[in-house]
Amino acid sequence: MSVFTDLNGVFANGVSAGIKASGDKDLAYIYVPDAVGSAGVFTQNHCAASCVTHSRSSMKKNVVKAVIVNAGNANCYTGKQGEKDTKTMAKAAAKALGLRAAEVAVASTGIIGKNLPIDAIETAIGELCTGEDKDANAAAQAILTVDLLEKLVYKARKIGKKEIVVAGISKGSGMIAPNMATTLTFLVTNATLTNDQCYSFLKKAIDDSLNMVTLDTDTSTNDMVLLFSTGEKKFSLTNKDETDMFQDLMNDACVDLAKQMARDGEGASKLIEVTVKGAASKKDARIISKNIVGSPLVKTAVTAASANWGRLVMAIGKEPNVKVNPNKLTISVGSVVLVRDGVPLDYDPKEAEKEMSSETVCITADLNLNSYEATAWGCDLTNEFIRINAEYN
Amino acid sequence: MSVFTDLNGVFANGVSAGIKASGDKDLAYIYVPDAVGSAGVFTQNHCAASCVTHSRSSMKKNVVKAVIVNAGNANCYTGKQGEKDTKTMAKAAAKALGLRAAEVAVASTGIIGKNLPIDAIETAIGELCTGEDKDANAAAQAILTVDLLEKLVYKARKIGKKEIVVAGISKGSGMIAPNMATTLTFLVTNATLTNDQCYSFLKKAIDDSLNMVTLDTDTSTNDMVLLFSTGEKKFSLTNKDETDMFQDLMNDACVDLAKQMARDGEGASKLIEVTVKGAASKKDARIISKNIVGSPLVKTAVTAASANWGRLVMAIGKEPNVKVNPNKLTISVGSVVLVRDGVPLDYDPKEAEKEMSSETVCITADLNLNSYEATAWGCDLTNEFIRINAEYN
Repeated sequence: MSVFTDLNGVFANGVSAGIKASGDKDLAYIYVPDAVGSAGVFTQNHCAASCVTHSRSSMKKNVVKAVIVNAGNANCYTGKQGEKDTKTMAKAAAKALGLRAAEVAVASTGIIGKNLPIDAIETAIGELCTGEDKDANAAAQAILTVDLLEKLVYKARKIGKKEIVVAGISKGSGMIAPNMATTLTFLVTNATLTNDQCYSFLKKAIDDSLNMVTLDTDTSTNDMVLLFSTGEKKFSLTNKDETDMFQDLMNDACVDLAKQMARDGEGASKLIEVTVKGAASKKDARIISKNIVGSPLVKTAVTAASANWGRLVMAIGKEPNVKVNPNKLTISVGSVVLVRDGVPLDYDPKEAEKEMSSETVCITADLNLNSYEATAWGCDLTNEFIRINAEYN
Repeated sequence: MSVFTDLNGVFANGVSAGIKASGDKDLAYIYVPDAVGSAGVFTQNHCAASCVTHSRSSMKKNVVKAVIVNAGNANCYTGKQGEKDTKTMAKAAAKALGLRAAEVAVASTGIIGKNLPIDAIETAIGELCTGEDKDANAAAQAILTVDLLEKLVYKARKIGKKEIVVAGISKGSGMIAPNMATTLTFLVTNATLTNDQCYSFLKKAIDDSLNMVTLDTDTSTNDMVLLFSTGEKKFSLTNKDETDMFQDLMNDACVDLAKQMARDGEGASKLIEVTVKGAASKKDARIISKNIVGSPLVKTAVTAASANWGRLVMAIGKEPNVKVNPNKLTISVGSVVLVRDGVPLDYDPKEAEKEMSSETVCITADLNLNSYEATAWGCDLTNEFIRINAEYN
């Protein structure tokens, strides 16, 4: 399978710098020396970490050409020392790669409120950032916290006569109910894009993918999604067909990562995909699909493989500021229609249970009001969620 | 301990009508024959049950003098038959008590989407509603679903020269993140109030009590809170001191029930009380306190008795549309200050763990921005929550 470092001019690697007690990899870099455009979308949490402030500001003023990432410690709510440590990370990576510090984004993830072992990290950055590595898997591993699986994506499509690629890595698992950004995700494309173009494509893709993942209603202090353009391939940004195709490619890549993230939610045994159709507005469709996939009572019904459509009705109706007519609802799980036009059907409970036992449980609610739709992703709620979160301190 | 049926002119009882498979009590009535005022606050869920529609409409047009309540079946999303069954319940109670059906409110709670065993219920109502019973505990038992404990309150205060009482019963436990109403609660007062006065006092009391309980982010289809005035004692509704005292008494009663409800949340082992002080507005204080008490990561930290203030910082900051300055936060658990003016303190971890192990975990966050404050209640998140919700279908 192709990985993001297969692109020309994209380098990455990951090592252990001793931040995680386990000794697992915890420090990664991605380096795009000839980047022509870059952009980031960041958490809106008021208590955002200093790496968010640094990276947001760098992205505004520069074409950013690298990101240095540590896992195991979020370097959040760590005061002046934390701010200084973020700068030290940027500077150390810049020095090793021959860049200015403002051309290096910094991302941290892990526990809040503890200072980084910055000396060890500074030394490790010097050794790690050779600028010549192509180890996408090591980078993907090093950015994880309680995730069980590495998350990589590689999507290619012919646009005009060029083979255009969007590829990257994510970490997810906890504190996932994004608001204009989600978790750590790093993407590269070989398409030639300016900073503004990067931002515009990225923002739209995220709205329909990473921003539609709701695992636990919490929003991380350290979320960021970055996109780098290598500038290798030009396509016509004035041709609407071609820009639409590129947007689709970006969306594809982000939806793929969103689903990987939801499936690997803390303690998850199943991926839940909820599509709301026929909504009065796009906003309504988004709100309702996220309310369904985020409802603890729906999540535990999925855990139990119970086609409890009563809980779906409750979750569809729970937000007063959207349009819902209970008498028009059609609700299905997989291919089994549970409720049609507001009337509960006499469905086969075994068939319904089979759909609810699937690795991916697909719930569809048609509001039958208008033509807007949205899809949200989440996971079931298991004892494992509680074990992980009671133990991870 | 005094109970609400100790008031003159208040009657209640509960029996088993065979709705719950367990054979437990599942049908209750409250009867205030000489009621002079009544009001209700109802769920805003779009898929509200027909009992909500019936009771809301009755409360608007009449002084309602009784409520008939069943547990074990919400009679929600049950179509025309469900609407008919609600009317049958009102009529049967009205007939037994010598009232008009529009003077009888109906409340149902339990599983969604199943028709009531209406013949059995109709017969049971005829036997139950003698209009002479004073069994508050039987009524409190009969309205429960997965609650472990009956919830009764009785608050008395001298206002002017009169001993004024607000008393009643609640059920809670699940689907609790109220929006202008919460769960089933029935209150009576011996104060003489009109319908409008009942509504005004009730609404204000609920906003600072039942509406500040967040157990699982879900909102029931069947929530209602009703208040009946027996008309026994007059106090001066033009005297601000006396109306303030009565409002305080209402708030006291509702806060007491809110805390009982939070402590008995599904699978709860601890009550969590979160006070946000120093907020820029009352609305901000409400949102942030509910975000903290509702965060699964905060709830599981309480489960583990871990003073993980990083998660508190995350939860305080997670809503973009409120004012928070991370550098001004002061955060305490019980008497242990964890963070002061944005600086993490070197607190005694044993003391903090002791506070987090308490039966009531009190978390205080001072935003140090202005003088608004709010308190929210919730419970920890345990394996028992998942067991209950995976099994209850």
